[in-house]
Amino acid sequence: MGNRNKYEFLEKINEPCELDGIDNLEEVCAEIRDKIISIVSKNGGHLASNLGVVELTVVLHKVFNGKDDKIVWDVGHQCYAHKMLTGRFSKIDTIRTEGGISGFPNKAESDYDAFTSGHSSTSISAALGLAYANELSGRDAHTIAVIGDGALTGGLSYEGLNNAGKFKKNFIVVLNDNQMSISHNVGAISRYLTYVRIRPYYMKMKSKVERFLSKVPFLGGHLIGLIRKLKYIFKGLLYDTTIFEDMGFLYYGPVAGHDINELMRVFKRVKDLNRPVLVHVVTTKGKGYKFAEQDPKQFHGVSKFDTKTGGGETPKETFSGVFGDEVCTIAGRNEKVCAITAAMKSGTGLNNFSKLYKSRFFDVGIAEEHAVTFAGGLAAGGFIPIVAVYSTFLQRAYDQIMHDVSLQNTKVIFAVDRAGFTGDDGETHQGIFDVPFLNSIPRIKIFSPSFFDELKSMIDSAVEKEEGISAIRYPRGEQFYKPSYFTYKGEDYNLVFNNKSDILIVTYGRIFSNACLAREKLINSKDLETNILKLNVIKPLNPEILNIASEYRYIFFFEESSKSGGIGETFGSRLCEMDFKGKYFHSAVEDKFVSHASVQAQIKRFSLDCDGMVNKILYGIGR
Amino acid sequence: MGNRNKYEFLEKINEPCELDGIDNLEEVCAEIRDKIISIVSKNGGHLASNLGVVELTVVLHKVFNGKDDKIVWDVGHQCYAHKMLTGRFSKIDTIRTEGGISGFPNKAESDYDAFTSGHSSTSISAALGLAYANELSGRDAHTIAVIGDGALTGGLSYEGLNNAGKFKKNFIVVLNDNQMSISHNVGAISRYLTYVRIRPYYMKMKSKVERFLSKVPFLGGHLIGLIRKLKYIFKGLLYDTTIFEDMGFLYYGPVAGHDINELMRVFKRVKDLNRPVLVHVVTTKGKGYKFAEQDPKQFHGVSKFDTKTGGGETPKETFSGVFGDEVCTIAGRNEKVCAITAAMKSGTGLNNFSKLYKSRFFDVGIAEEHAVTFAGGLAAGGFIPIVAVYSTFLQRAYDQIMHDVSLQNTKVIFAVDRAGFTGDDGETHQGIFDVPFLNSIPRIKIFSPSFFDELKSMIDSAVEKEEGISAIRYPRGEQFYKPSYFTYKGEDYNLVFNNKSDILIVTYGRIFSNACLAREKLINSKDLETNILKLNVIKPLNPEILNIASEYRYIFFFEESSKSGGIGETFGSRLCEMDFKGKYFHSAVEDKFVSHASVQAQIKRFSLDCDGMVNKILYGIGR
Repeated sequence: MGNRNKYEFLEKINEPCELDGIDNLEEVCAEIRDKIISIVSKNGGHLASNLGVVELTVVLHKVFNGKDDKIVWDVGHQCYAHKMLTGRFSKIDTIRTEGGISGFPNKAESDYDAFTSGHSSTSISAALGLAYANELSGRDAHTIAVIGDGALTGGLSYEGLNNAGKFKKNFIVVLNDNQMSISHNVGAISRYLTYVRIRPYYMKMKSKVERFLSKVPFLGGHLIGLIRKLKYIFKGLLYDTTIFEDMGFLYYGPVAGHDINELMRVFKRVKDLNRPVLVHVVTTKGKGYKFAEQDPKQFHGVSKFDTKTGGGETPKETFSGVFGDEVCTIAGRNEKVCAITAAMKSGTGLNNFSKLYKSRFFDVGIAEEHAVTFAGGLAAGGFIPIVAVYSTFLQRAYDQIMHDVSLQNTKVIFAVDRAGFTGDDGETHQGIFDVPFLNSIPRIKIFSPSFFDELKSMIDSAVEKEEGISAIRYPRGEQFYKPSYFTYKGEDYNLVFNNKSDILIVTYGRIFSNACLAREKLINSKDLETNILKLNVIKPLNPEILNIASEYRYIFFFEESSKSGGIGETFGSRLCEMDFKGKYFHSAVEDKFVSHASVQAQIKRFSLDCDGMVNKILYGIGR
Repeated sequence: MGNRNKYEFLEKINEPCELDGIDNLEEVCAEIRDKIISIVSKNGGHLASNLGVVELTVVLHKVFNGKDDKIVWDVGHQCYAHKMLTGRFSKIDTIRTEGGISGFPNKAESDYDAFTSGHSSTSISAALGLAYANELSGRDAHTIAVIGDGALTGGLSYEGLNNAGKFKKNFIVVLNDNQMSISHNVGAISRYLTYVRIRPYYMKMKSKVERFLSKVPFLGGHLIGLIRKLKYIFKGLLYDTTIFEDMGFLYYGPVAGHDINELMRVFKRVKDLNRPVLVHVVTTKGKGYKFAEQDPKQFHGVSKFDTKTGGGETPKETFSGVFGDEVCTIAGRNEKVCAITAAMKSGTGLNNFSKLYKSRFFDVGIAEEHAVTFAGGLAAGGFIPIVAVYSTFLQRAYDQIMHDVSLQNTKVIFAVDRAGFTGDDGETHQGIFDVPFLNSIPRIKIFSPSFFDELKSMIDSAVEKEEGISAIRYPRGEQFYKPSYFTYKGEDYNLVFNNKSDILIVTYGRIFSNACLAREKLINSKDLETNILKLNVIKPLNPEILNIASEYRYIFFFEESSKSGGIGETFGSRLCEMDFKGKYFHSAVEDKFVSHASVQAQIKRFSLDCDGMVNKILYGIGR
């Protein structure tokens, strides 16, 4: 762009209404695209999905009045352009960093963010609530839900459509159809959309058919009667031919999603309809950045990368990768083992499994509830399903875990990925609730590995030794510091050193590493001996654990999880029931959501790092 | 039926294969109907839904081999005929009574019950799991999901259809369309089914149109070219015209659901198709019992009644009724208040509200997730939604409570009906998990009234005083014994008597009554003084509560709830953190599901009745 300001337009737009004075929307889009690529390459984030909706976002803000009219972005993988146009361009470089703006729509951040999101398929229901609120208040404003074809595989979006179809005022659902969600899309709806998409002249055809039918009465002969009867049926069929029309929506589409004029024309028209409308916009995920267009899956959510080559950092070994490898090994020797994922094949490390054991691999789309109930069915039929879902998304299937697995008394294994802090994705994505909600599931056995070898061994146990429901929860990314003096051999717990001390640290998962560091630091700097009780199975609690713990004078329980309803409270309460006479200190996340920052910063924020633990202990014992 | 044995056929059928020798299926159906009416009138249960599927059940068991072939009954409101035909006729009089058979399909009870159910919309997903298990094992057997049109409003059924549409073998979904679920059905799908239903000659018409199109090429003149082009489109439209076909199913219907010959013909035909088929069966809810046919809503789930008049016991005042009245009062003075129910208008006491405040009343169908996310949208738009859902069904919206309400920091009130033991509906319906799962929701305030006046006052508080998310959980049915010496005045807790004693009973909800009785009994029979700490707000725990409790030597926490992750553990753990030096005893439901019995029997089973409490206390203090 030579010497001129790279973001000439964007720097002038503080409110979306300032788009009014700009005719050259293509240039605005080009600036947005450039900025998206630049910030994601530095901060990581969602690239391909954001690039796909640039024109759509600009047009929505041009046609609608984003402060009165509400735009609800489903999931929020596509809100960067929206943030740039709604007063946050100056802060966009801080996106996803501690103290900076969030990578997802966030009500607390801006009035233009009508609804906080991060989990999929909520937009239609939430937008419908906002639309009814307008109607009940007599406010004349528009509500627009923007939802991807991937999110449309989630049942909640269907419940939303089912309820929205009868709304009596303008209500716009924009189906952002990029032929995939996070992975390639699956299921009948996806195939169906392909079918709708390949009829680009659908709307035109409709009117041709109409004209033909209007001519029918002039035909002579024997056929007239039959044609007249058929005409009624044809008309019905013609007008109720997409699923969306069946559900009470007027259907507009497919619309070319990168053609600004076409988008302007359509949205200006649908704005004034007094009924629910679905606008089917076809976009290209990764549009305008060749590496992302070529491999949108790879560029859905990314870490830092080189904008010129598209190359990122060399991937290191992760818990997800170790899980994926181990499950392949197990499936090789046990033909009953199946793997299920909800649109997270790559994220959960199941790429290889899906190739090696195609018939036993199931990607069900963004449909965690179905994933779990389907697993319940497979288990009832004698198979051993491993359901690999991120901790935060497994929240969606709480009742299915309860009703369709635990209650059935069948053997299903939950591989709970991204358990604990997950870093820069922010409040909506932290895996800090799986311990409390799984704690309430009867009969479940919950494993919490600290290291790769433990994860492998625990999956093996769950598959080969357990009779019923179990969960193995492991964190995002790499393992932490592994002390040379510790080896896991399949025990429910380990007492790490049993030196003379009246202080016990109790913990589980990856922050066991921090406990070891804290222990070493306390010895070295304060000559203070502590023992560590490492929980490998956090539910049910082996009674020996409590017997051991109750002998100590000070117990410090450190937990990378929400406190309320979790294992630390079960532990404390059991101690109390055992007449424990010492002091119990419990550190965890207390009744709050955790905003974006690096994982290490989040761990530090809740005093679960080495220094935090050291300070808690010294304070607790009065030193 | 004169002198002959009333159940001549049924008494001979021990296995469904014994239907083979019987030609007079109408008589079998008549016996089943007679027996359903008779047992439900005595034991209570689901009447209208069971009466509606008698012919369907008999035909399914005649056509399929119910031990290899698996029938999955959605929700299970329609399994009585199935139970009578699968070896349980002799036990059918014990249905829903303690020690007797369950009122719902139960895997543990019979191999013929392929999947335990009780919650809605699980059948397609579970059956698909069973079907894949057959395919992977090379077993040549059929899988049939029977789902009502009501259950089809739940998103999970859509996720199931979306995934089932691509199955490559026989997979049968029977849509039992009785034009309603528990209440009248709502939403676009319901309207859509009406539309499909009123085209009884749909299939015939299809073939007529086909014949017409095959003749087209012989037409002369200018129209031929156009018609040729259109033919392709018409064909597509004709064959993809129901939603089910769009989702990959072959559609058969509508089929007259009480015509045995028609049902036999259809199921014999679809049995051999190597693909997913949806059979749309139209039934009459309550069929064969005039009172139930006239008012199927009233006769969906019933208590004992007089078979001759259809009259039941005079209804007594219930928590649901009190809730419904109070919400009407509040809505009268606060025009922001809305009420939302998921197909439970009557059950949750919202009949009057729905008439008085029609525009602010929303019945969303069996779609708890949408109910909550929609409420989140209404709240974001400035309204005050009260979401009235049974405790056990609210489990389904755990993530929505977390993500679409708590995280949004908006004000939504959850009216959690049927909290605690719910009696004869059994394992799937007990409200014993809402305390644990709500305990893990950040920021939530949880009220737990013991009496009607408390419920009223707490709803008022939640609406008028609270700023954010709150839940009021109250039990099924009537209030228990109300001691004259106790009055609630809006406190977070009450210390009932502060007489000199070193024993404290801590409890909440309706079993506070039992604690009062236990206290009286201990004074009268043992001259033993105890104090009672009654919790009105169980989360967050007012710190004063713990200060008071920690002064006692013995604390007995009684909880009508699951123990793990619940308030009793939070309480015990906090005590432990406070250096409590006394003894803590915690009585609750430990890590199990609770089978059917009367509410009082269930309370007794877990020692939460007066005598149970007395014994626990005496044992605890060593007397």
